[in-house]
Amino acid sequence: MDHFRRIGALRRKLTRAGLPGLIVTHLPDLRYLSGFTGSSAALAITSRAGRLFTDGRYRVQATEEVQAARVEIVSGAPASAAIQWLAAQPGVEVAGFDPACTTVAELARWKAALPSPLRRAFLSALPAPMVEPLRRIKDEEELALMIEAALVGCKLFDHMLGFIRPGLIEIEVAAELEHQARLMGAEGMSFETIVASGVRSALPHGRATSATLPRRGFLTLDFGIIHGGYCSDMTRTVYLGRPKAEERNAYNAVLEAQEAAVAAVSSGVRCDEVDEAARSVLRREGLAEAFSHSTGHGVGLEIHESPRIGAGQATRLMPGMVVTIEPGVYLAGKFGIRIEDMVAVTPTGGQVLTPAPKALIEL
Amino acid sequence: MDHFRRIGALRRKLTRAGLPGLIVTHLPDLRYLSGFTGSSAALAITSRAGRLFTDGRYRVQATEEVQAARVEIVSGAPASAAIQWLAAQPGVEVAGFDPACTTVAELARWKAALPSPLRRAFLSALPAPMVEPLRRIKDEEELALMIEAALVGCKLFDHMLGFIRPGLIEIEVAAELEHQARLMGAEGMSFETIVASGVRSALPHGRATSATLPRRGFLTLDFGIIHGGYCSDMTRTVYLGRPKAEERNAYNAVLEAQEAAVAAVSSGVRCDEVDEAARSVLRREGLAEAFSHSTGHGVGLEIHESPRIGAGQATRLMPGMVVTIEPGVYLAGKFGIRIEDMVAVTPTGGQVLTPAPKALIEL
Repeated sequence: MDHFRRIGALRRKLTRAGLPGLIVTHLPDLRYLSGFTGSSAALAITSRAGRLFTDGRYRVQATEEVQAARVEIVSGAPASAAIQWLAAQPGVEVAGFDPACTTVAELARWKAALPSPLRRAFLSALPAPMVEPLRRIKDEEELALMIEAALVGCKLFDHMLGFIRPGLIEIEVAAELEHQARLMGAEGMSFETIVASGVRSALPHGRATSATLPRRGFLTLDFGIIHGGYCSDMTRTVYLGRPKAEERNAYNAVLEAQEAAVAAVSSGVRCDEVDEAARSVLRREGLAEAFSHSTGHGVGLEIHESPRIGAGQATRLMPGMVVTIEPGVYLAGKFGIRIEDMVAVTPTGGQVLTPAPKALIEL
Repeated sequence: MDHFRRIGALRRKLTRAGLPGLIVTHLPDLRYLSGFTGSSAALAITSRAGRLFTDGRYRVQATEEVQAARVEIVSGAPASAAIQWLAAQPGVEVAGFDPACTTVAELARWKAALPSPLRRAFLSALPAPMVEPLRRIKDEEELALMIEAALVGCKLFDHMLGFIRPGLIEIEVAAELEHQARLMGAEGMSFETIVASGVRSALPHGRATSATLPRRGFLTLDFGIIHGGYCSDMTRTVYLGRPKAEERNAYNAVLEAQEAAVAAVSSGVRCDEVDEAARSVLRREGLAEAFSHSTGHGVGLEIHESPRIGAGQATRLMPGMVVTIEPGVYLAGKFGIRIEDMVAVTPTGGQVLTPAPKALIEL
């Protein structure tokens, strides 16, 4: 990963914003900028230097992982050391921090670590995140990892088609999926695996329970793995037995909505336009009320990143963004259906990273 | 779970602190106080009323789970609604919040949700956490769940003794352990399973990798499951092949240190005294430097809770606390050893919740 380039891009943003210093403590941001994968560190950036502060547990690891910033091992809190270092740099009269990633208690500790004349004004809350917009645009190495992660997801789904049968309990399905994921080399699951069968498929976030898979009904699998730090995310809904006409119609409506939104993905398109592409199909089918969440979200080092693909989201898609497209309908007490792909935005459209079958599968 | 009693105890603390209102947003605190297990809510407490705010996704679930507070479904941010509700209660001129669980950006949004005359002084950072000290003392229902969780851990370790053999890769060991945990009914793992073999056992937090288990060397397993929301946590280190004298001696030193600290656990004892019980054994054996972390931590709805069992920790143990006792030694480039039990503090001593064998097992 080209951490020098990333820190360089961040530094140019700082210069444009007239900000002489920045502290970064959000772990996915730290990993993105420096390669550091430990659980405690702070990165201080100025127009001339970058320094990563961490504790003794990470002495060997940090030196191996971090090339684009000097590593300093400290015995106290890494963030306080980073703040003190920033305050001691010539020309750094103010340093930005991300208020969405800093607790009120942390900020108080950081201020207490400063000489008293600096406590009032040295630290400045960023009006908007600075690292997150960089992370939105995946470079080639990141895309390669995400393609691999997504393909492991497809292989897992294919495996599960041979495993799923009525009478299993949902937990057994989740256990098998996660076990195979590990054996396929996943570093972990990117979120708690969702296995929701029968009437439970109407719960958008149904954790796997001890419910038994029915002889007849939908089964939703929503899962993702972590590979090289990057998350995959996909959902497929299959049918156990033979669906009724209402169920088949609803499935096909969700599928049409999902494909319409995937087709809408292209560089320059607004996120709310992609959302509307899915929503308008379900509205036409009388299912607008049953589609109770937004259409998708960015994904990368975190399972939920910007941009959000939802109503009122004016952000424009750009090449290198990777988003999920996952409309669903949920009819309480009856059934639910969701279909989700990961899609990379290209200059000319969208590349689906999860090419698993989407036509209704009856098991 | 007796949520009425818990909210009552919190209310008495508020009265004693002269605080007419409190907002709670930390999810484990919300679960502890109200039973709510969703991912987004805020609880407002006054001397007379309690109200849980959440969004439409949790309409059914919140009504089922929450009895001790009235549930209100809101379309905006639950915390902002809770703040506005608190500000409208007669006699509530100020409301506390936990600065360690509130980001700078959240606090700014909460203030913006208030009428402007209240923005300056209505919200007051608590000088010390209010819910966390209640959570430290587990009641009988909580202890019953934690005993069950810990026993699942012991069963898993027993299963793994029949599975582990040289030539497996660490990831296969983690996969088998997690798969069995699921099949035994675990809701999930309480943290990323640690499988560290050979020289990797010298890494206190060695994630499972594609390293092959050696024909001769230590293997550390550190893992926990979630049961009824409560975490278990245990570590065992076994030997593949026959240990050298140095390895056996180091193991027995860690075991002696661990048993000394377990024996030191009793109501009224200071946490640093328990830490010192382990540390003094390792110091005598010339291994003080190799014991690079604290002896243990509280455990419950979160895997790491207060109190911390470490040097300089003056907190006194009280009946109902559940802590881990987990000294270890780590010799870089050679090997590492850690042994960990969960121990419940009783009026007369400590009850080990993880009765799996600790004498050195050679596989």
